[in-house]
Amino acid sequence: MMSPSALAATRLALRTRAPLIHNITSAVAANFTANVLLALGASPAMVESDDEVEEFVALSDALVINLGSRTVQRSAIMLKAAEAAKRTVSLWVLDPVGVGAIEPRNALARVLCELGPTAIRGNASEILGLVGEDGQGRGVDTGLGSDQAIGAARRLARSTGAIVAVTGAVDYVTDGNEVLSVAHGHPMMTRVTGMGCAATAIVAACLAVQPDRLRAVAQALTITGIAGEIAASRAAGPGSLAMHYLDALAGDIQALPDR
Amino acid sequence: MMSPSALAATRLALRTRAPLIHNITSAVAANFTANVLLALGASPAMVESDDEVEEFVALSDALVINLGSRTVQRSAIMLKAAEAAKRTVSLWVLDPVGVGAIEPRNALARVLCELGPTAIRGNASEILGLVGEDGQGRGVDTGLGSDQAIGAARRLARSTGAIVAVTGAVDYVTDGNEVLSVAHGHPMMTRVTGMGCAATAIVAACLAVQPDRLRAVAQALTITGIAGEIAASRAAGPGSLAMHYLDALAGDIQALPDR
Amino acid sequence: MMSPSALAATRLALRTRAPLIHNITSAVAANFTANVLLALGASPAMVESDDEVEEFVALSDALVINLGSRTVQRSAIMLKAAEAAKRTVSLWVLDPVGVGAIEPRNALARVLCELGPTAIRGNASEILGLVGEDGQGRGVDTGLGSDQAIGAARRLARSTGAIVAVTGAVDYVTDGNEVLSVAHGHPMMTRVTGMGCAATAIVAACLAVQPDRLRAVAQALTITGIAGEIAASRAAGPGSLAMHYLDALAGDIQALPDR
Repeated sequence: MMSPSALAATRLALRTRAPLIHNITSAVAANFTANVLLALGASPAMVESDDEVEEFVALSDALVINLGSRTVQRSAIMLKAAEAAKRTVSLWVLDPVGVGAIEPRNALARVLCELGPTAIRGNASEILGLVGEDGQGRGVDTGLGSDQAIGAARRLARSTGAIVAVTGAVDYVTDGNEVLSVAHGHPMMTRVTGMGCAATAIVAACLAVQPDRLRAVAQALTITGIAGEIAASRAAGPGSLAMHYLDALAGDIQALPDR
Repeated sequence: MMSPSALAATRLALRTRAPLIHNITSAVAANFTANVLLALGASPAMVESDDEVEEFVALSDALVINLGSRTVQRSAIMLKAAEAAKRTVSLWVLDPVGVGAIEPRNALARVLCELGPTAIRGNASEILGLVGEDGQGRGVDTGLGSDQAIGAARRLARSTGAIVAVTGAVDYVTDGNEVLSVAHGHPMMTRVTGMGCAATAIVAACLAVQPDRLRAVAQALTITGIAGEIAASRAAGPGSLAMHYLDALAGDIQALPDR
Repeated sequence: MMSPSALAATRLALRTRAPLIHNITSAVAANFTANVLLALGASPAMVESDDEVEEFVALSDALVINLGSRTVQRSAIMLKAAEAAKRTVSLWVLDPVGVGAIEPRNALARVLCELGPTAIRGNASEILGLVGEDGQGRGVDTGLGSDQAIGAARRLARSTGAIVAVTGAVDYVTDGNEVLSVAHGHPMMTRVTGMGCAATAIVAACLAVQPDRLRAVAQALTITGIAGEIAASRAAGPGSLAMHYLDALAGDIQALPDR
């Protein structure tokens, strides 16, 4: 469902334009996220000082706000960054890690949603948490029916204006009307921490080079899914999967028959 | 000394029950710790916001407090988390990184010990630091005689009620009376950062699925030691050791003849 | 241009003396930096609590201050650590990550430079940022002419008393008068996050065991460059490069014909 030439064009643009992606993310995901962006040809940066974050948003091509790093202090910095992105008409992407499970996080996510994220990527329970339905908490993919997840994603896209991606065994991407599905990836990817966070960073990178936002998000999830399939075919377990995944992002995808 | 069937039962329980392990740990160890838990089949989470930590302790199956991340602010959050664990009768495990070397850390560790950790895992100098003996500081394994280390571990177990593990070339695990030893592992493991921190997280995961606490801790150290041996046999150095270690945790151990 | 026997002597000293290197660094670079130091035989530590940092500087053989982790709070801790290093005549190395791009960071870097760093390692735009010239911001290597970079490094070395290293395709190391060049490394290294940060930590480790400071810094960059070349020859992409790089640091370099 993804045009091979469009995917190749986006990957080439990542390498030639090297968009600067500013990430406010967790200590768990920071290193892997930066390596994923570098493997694709993008330039990662992680600036989260209260007195630097606005200036840096304006220098960046896109911003990622990942709630995995939420603390009381960082909540204020996240809001400041999102407001700066809104003012400077920058792209920004929300990763609502853990939303649905604990209330202070839900409240922050709701305020961030009002600041006009360009895209939101989460698993089914997180997207349900954002629309106030019961995602059964704990931030894990709860195997919800795809109809319920797609319905929640559509409502969230309409209320926020964001492209919404709900990821799982099959990913769904919607602007509130059209729904694209991406059926790539491998179950072993769920055994590597930061895979979802890194996918969100890839979404931000693709948005920075591909003006069709709905397709940019779907392309990002196609890239992560195909790289994961390549990596799984070479891996002996999750440790080697992570390594092969980075190698695949850097090199192999364009040699694949696109699907 | 470890029953093969008991070890296999614990590993199966980790995969089928996927206990949620809440880690307050350092930026150095966070990614590797999460990947170790995922490789075993557990669910890692790292929540350390002042206004979320108590709520999240109650949702988790076990908590790890790792002093490697100590700051003045985080000390308060660690105490709040340990108190919440005590109130909700949750399991919690202390990793006294660096205790013995610097005084503010020693003081925090003493207060945490009074909050009833289920288990404590450290190297000889850290366990000696906790009982107020001179561990010669600097947080490194100082090659102390096993008699001195076992004596300190026993006293610490009796005074705190915790299962105490002192790890090194041979690991010792005690409830204050019985002492189990685990003679697995490989010296190259000391060249990978976060190996000890990850072992503490495995202790927490095993405690969440194995009610015999003394044996749960010994099983955790057996799992990490055997995975390290498998990894070392395949590794060309510490970089590849870390990768093979994760692969071994995810797959190979159950195929080994248990010892 | 580097004496093979001098390089071998430094590497042996790292293994036998295991210098304790205290790092105040970012969540992105912390794990990789620690693993690089362990692979070389050094002992890494990351202590950044306000009430512990001075005590720990005095226990350490060298300190690294990496501005990648800058926040308002951590700025105060960095200054406290640098002042403690100055008082105790400890070695300390500055990594001016992102200097030139955003003003609060530039201001902090200028104050730190007045506290007498033993060495400073950055890319061309960061070194130009430190001397107040336009590095074109964004912390990336801007392909500036080597003459301009060398000139800036020399002026910075003279004004601060530090050994200054400006790294890129060719690295230049100067005490303000003599200029050494190191022509090792591989372009794929720029696709692994934390490579520059880890090189700074290697600089600190070499300074701890090699009293000729100019040569210590050049040796550190030679070690990282040769390890990178070995790793690139074995790697399928940046994921496997990082793994092979650690393995090479731990073992292979001494088997190479030194250049």
